[in-house]
Amino acid sequence: MICFTFHCPDRPGIVAELSAFLAEHRCNILALEQHVEQDRFFIRIEWEDNGAWQDSDAFAADFCALPVSVGGELDIHFFNRPQSLGLFVSREPHALLEVLNKIELGDLVDAQVSFIIGNVDHSAIAARVGVPFYFVPTKDNPDFEAQQLEIIAKHNPDFIGLARYMKILSEEFIDRAACPIINIHHSFLPSFVGAKPYEMAYERGVKLMGATSHFVIPELDQGPIIEQDVSRIRSGYSVEKLKQIGRDTEKKVFAQALKKVLEHKTVVFSGRTVVFE
Amino acid sequence: MICFTFHCPDRPGIVAELSAFLAEHRCNILALEQHVEQDRFFIRIEWEDNGAWQDSDAFAADFCALPVSVGGELDIHFFNRPQSLGLFVSREPHALLEVLNKIELGDLVDAQVSFIIGNVDHSAIAARVGVPFYFVPTKDNPDFEAQQLEIIAKHNPDFIGLARYMKILSEEFIDRAACPIINIHHSFLPSFVGAKPYEMAYERGVKLMGATSHFVIPELDQGPIIEQDVSRIRSGYSVEKLKQIGRDTEKKVFAQALKKVLEHKTVVFSGRTVVFE
Amino acid sequence: MICFTFHCPDRPGIVAELSAFLAEHRCNILALEQHVEQDRFFIRIEWEDNGAWQDSDAFAADFCALPVSVGGELDIHFFNRPQSLGLFVSREPHALLEVLNKIELGDLVDAQVSFIIGNVDHSAIAARVGVPFYFVPTKDNPDFEAQQLEIIAKHNPDFIGLARYMKILSEEFIDRAACPIINIHHSFLPSFVGAKPYEMAYERGVKLMGATSHFVIPELDQGPIIEQDVSRIRSGYSVEKLKQIGRDTEKKVFAQALKKVLEHKTVVFSGRTVVFE
Amino acid sequence: MICFTFHCPDRPGIVAELSAFLAEHRCNILALEQHVEQDRFFIRIEWEDNGAWQDSDAFAADFCALPVSVGGELDIHFFNRPQSLGLFVSREPHALLEVLNKIELGDLVDAQVSFIIGNVDHSAIAARVGVPFYFVPTKDNPDFEAQQLEIIAKHNPDFIGLARYMKILSEEFIDRAACPIINIHHSFLPSFVGAKPYEMAYERGVKLMGATSHFVIPELDQGPIIEQDVSRIRSGYSVEKLKQIGRDTEKKVFAQALKKVLEHKTVVFSGRTVVFE
Repeated sequence: MICFTFHCPDRPGIVAELSAFLAEHRCNILALEQHVEQDRFFIRIEWEDNGAWQDSDAFAADFCALPVSVGGELDIHFFNRPQSLGLFVSREPHALLEVLNKIELGDLVDAQVSFIIGNVDHSAIAARVGVPFYFVPTKDNPDFEAQQLEIIAKHNPDFIGLARYMKILSEEFIDRAACPIINIHHSFLPSFVGAKPYEMAYERGVKLMGATSHFVIPELDQGPIIEQDVSRIRSGYSVEKLKQIGRDTEKKVFAQALKKVLEHKTVVFSGRTVVFE
Repeated sequence: MICFTFHCPDRPGIVAELSAFLAEHRCNILALEQHVEQDRFFIRIEWEDNGAWQDSDAFAADFCALPVSVGGELDIHFFNRPQSLGLFVSREPHALLEVLNKIELGDLVDAQVSFIIGNVDHSAIAARVGVPFYFVPTKDNPDFEAQQLEIIAKHNPDFIGLARYMKILSEEFIDRAACPIINIHHSFLPSFVGAKPYEMAYERGVKLMGATSHFVIPELDQGPIIEQDVSRIRSGYSVEKLKQIGRDTEKKVFAQALKKVLEHKTVVFSGRTVVFE
Repeated sequence: MICFTFHCPDRPGIVAELSAFLAEHRCNILALEQHVEQDRFFIRIEWEDNGAWQDSDAFAADFCALPVSVGGELDIHFFNRPQSLGLFVSREPHALLEVLNKIELGDLVDAQVSFIIGNVDHSAIAARVGVPFYFVPTKDNPDFEAQQLEIIAKHNPDFIGLARYMKILSEEFIDRAACPIINIHHSFLPSFVGAKPYEMAYERGVKLMGATSHFVIPELDQGPIIEQDVSRIRSGYSVEKLKQIGRDTEKKVFAQALKKVLEHKTVVFSGRTVVFE
Repeated sequence: MICFTFHCPDRPGIVAELSAFLAEHRCNILALEQHVEQDRFFIRIEWEDNGAWQDSDAFAADFCALPVSVGGELDIHFFNRPQSLGLFVSREPHALLEVLNKIELGDLVDAQVSFIIGNVDHSAIAARVGVPFYFVPTKDNPDFEAQQLEIIAKHNPDFIGLARYMKILSEEFIDRAACPIINIHHSFLPSFVGAKPYEMAYERGVKLMGATSHFVIPELDQGPIIEQDVSRIRSGYSVEKLKQIGRDTEKKVFAQALKKVLEHKTVVFSGRTVVFE
């Protein structure tokens, strides 16, 4: 299977141009999703790989010749190899376990975890599934980002997932990691930015609490949102109980966001994530 | 705005053929949704009316010339006039009130209620919104279906909605009504077919109960499902409380189903309803 | 039926003391809900009225003699008369219509609307249900709060509901209204405080949007939250569509919050609302 | 902590009698939940263990002396030791993994898995968490129930969980297992009884599909329901996709049901499960 996402200024005839291009190359469209938002045209098309193009570069070269390509942005992906994922974790491993389980069960698109970095030791969990674990303490270790970047450079992952990694990434780190980074935040953003969302939710007396998965940008908890969900809170629940319930929401939202990213169903534009179904 | 839904056996090139056809007529596609299910291709396209066709017949005539049209089924709709709705009701008016309110607020596509038929008198509600109400008793009145059909024939509605009308329609009535009929059933079908779903749900001890809106066919509660939703039941709720909570689910599901039908976002194929987003 | 809510510092034996008190007066407890939160004991008890007390004052007098009453707060209510509700509305009447419908259907505890005040004319809606409507413009009318307070004083409602009333209440108004005021805010508080939540939700690209019903305090949108709910947003939804979907969430949340208040199932303590089931 | 659930025919004064009994023994009630359903009184009380009773037998002996105990049913539990769980599994391990993870994370009440029986080999998963795995083939092995019962007898678990075990249990097996058995069924019962619910849900075109956890009784899929949840289905989803989405619902519902059982928050009466919050 091959898919691309594409967005450009809207004008008549884009669908016709794109589908004619694929028809010329005898591609069978499996799924097409399209919408216009604030005069911007967004599309995602999936088709069976019929060998018309060898690889992404060959496709992009042909695509560039289309009039519509001017001023647009293309993401093309051939699903002919597993994508690799680097995972970061701190004390709580529930989001990490969820992702590892889903990969094992085949419930994420063909993906593999190439490494796990923790500032708390979770080597036993990593060993179970045969993934290298790197313990990189962040306390009393001024070089921790450099050490993490070295590991990243070695494994060169397609994506990095922060599976409840409780340390703020520096702007330089984000730049140098050189791949999209997906975080799970334990609140319904934009409510309760920061490190203590369950305590803040309790204090405010909200009746639903949530979790948010987003792309990481230098501004803390401000990145484009990929997925969110909520759970109902009843009166009398303690902060501890909120955290316990929250773990289920967090792991579900994080896995769902990673699935969308690995399926190439997300496009970031103007600070927002367009998510295809 | 104009839209069509179309479905046909799947093969390569359908999207290209359809979008080229629209591009030739200089139509600007606003939204396109498409998927393949069990080798059947389903599509819905919306575009701005640019005067390329006068009416549905003119469009259909051109469409018939397309190779893809063979073996397919087309529904074309020009949103250039309000669609008319006939509503049936029995004792409980909550679903009726919801639809009347939504139309008043402009939250259903340009629609108007042309008549209300009840086997219980709700003329006061009808009077509020200036819609004719026909009281047609079903008890001790063997001719009630003939009387109802006469009213239908007079108003000739595009669709009929059964807003908690608690009488089974005969096969002959369905045939002669000659327009799609949408029902709201007060259970999560296929569970609890029949007239006492809340009592049955209570007895069985389910933890969620639901409502189902479906197209009416001669087989009771077996028609193609358009929309469903559920509410959570807690231990200790009486049957009365289930009914009260259920009313909110019923009215929401019924209004949502009518909205999809009025937006021409439903296609019935092989006993199932395909619903576009 | 009679019910009370009560809260006090926690210590052993409170339930025993309270239930013995009721048993002495031969009251049959129908429902009891109790929990401890941060060393505070919260309880709500419902029982059949057996004539043991004539009215709230008689009950409160006996209750005061209990050792547990010291340092606690009691709310006692005899459900022997309809409670009265004053409603405020601005341009959009969906939340108003929902409450009027629910009262008509008997889906709110025995309640009646004693007046509707609008800064936009909705007298036709009020006329349908035989409720006095007062048009009090807020533009170019510096005395509008005084005029509203005069109407409130005349009708003396048990509660005031702001059914999408888009004007900020002054601290003096809140004081002088002298009854609890329940608002529906069109966002998932504490996100998107202020007048343009749907626009802000769109900009931020959230994947769920919500509504919040809360008691009104002088600080804008900071009052104790009674009820919240959310709806899912899909990519491609316009701000207009968010508003349309939002109306359904708003009216549901507002009606649910009023129901809890009218059933005397809410207790405000320490800036939060405890809500009994 | 200690808790009991109790149910008996309703009459005035039960709460007073029970809470006075606990107050006499200087017990501090932490949580009390009570309701009346069809003239039956249901209650659950939690209190801090103050050493008033050595064990369940001592408590039950004192409880029997209460007038209210006549005609009632008591379940008393001291949370002073981990409860043991035996798990059965077939081909799909997602529900098993979820329970193992939750126990590891401390998100189920103090519990331990004492054994896993599979008719498919999942010994690697069991080895990870140091739990004995027994491979008991059910094909071409007429003695499989006897072999399973031998393992059960050896480990003597408090509860058995069927974590997507796809073999029908005989009435004799259920009797001889001699402990409550909790199943997860992959549909929203009572819809789609049997082995192919996702295929049936697809055929019927339902818009939500669900999962149900229930106590096992000899009648297939008819046992008292503990917990249910649903997921939304969109048009175009294949049966395979329904199964993938379904796995998330199944594992969540199963873990939630086990949690309620392990917290002694369930009471079975008259074919239904009363579930306390």
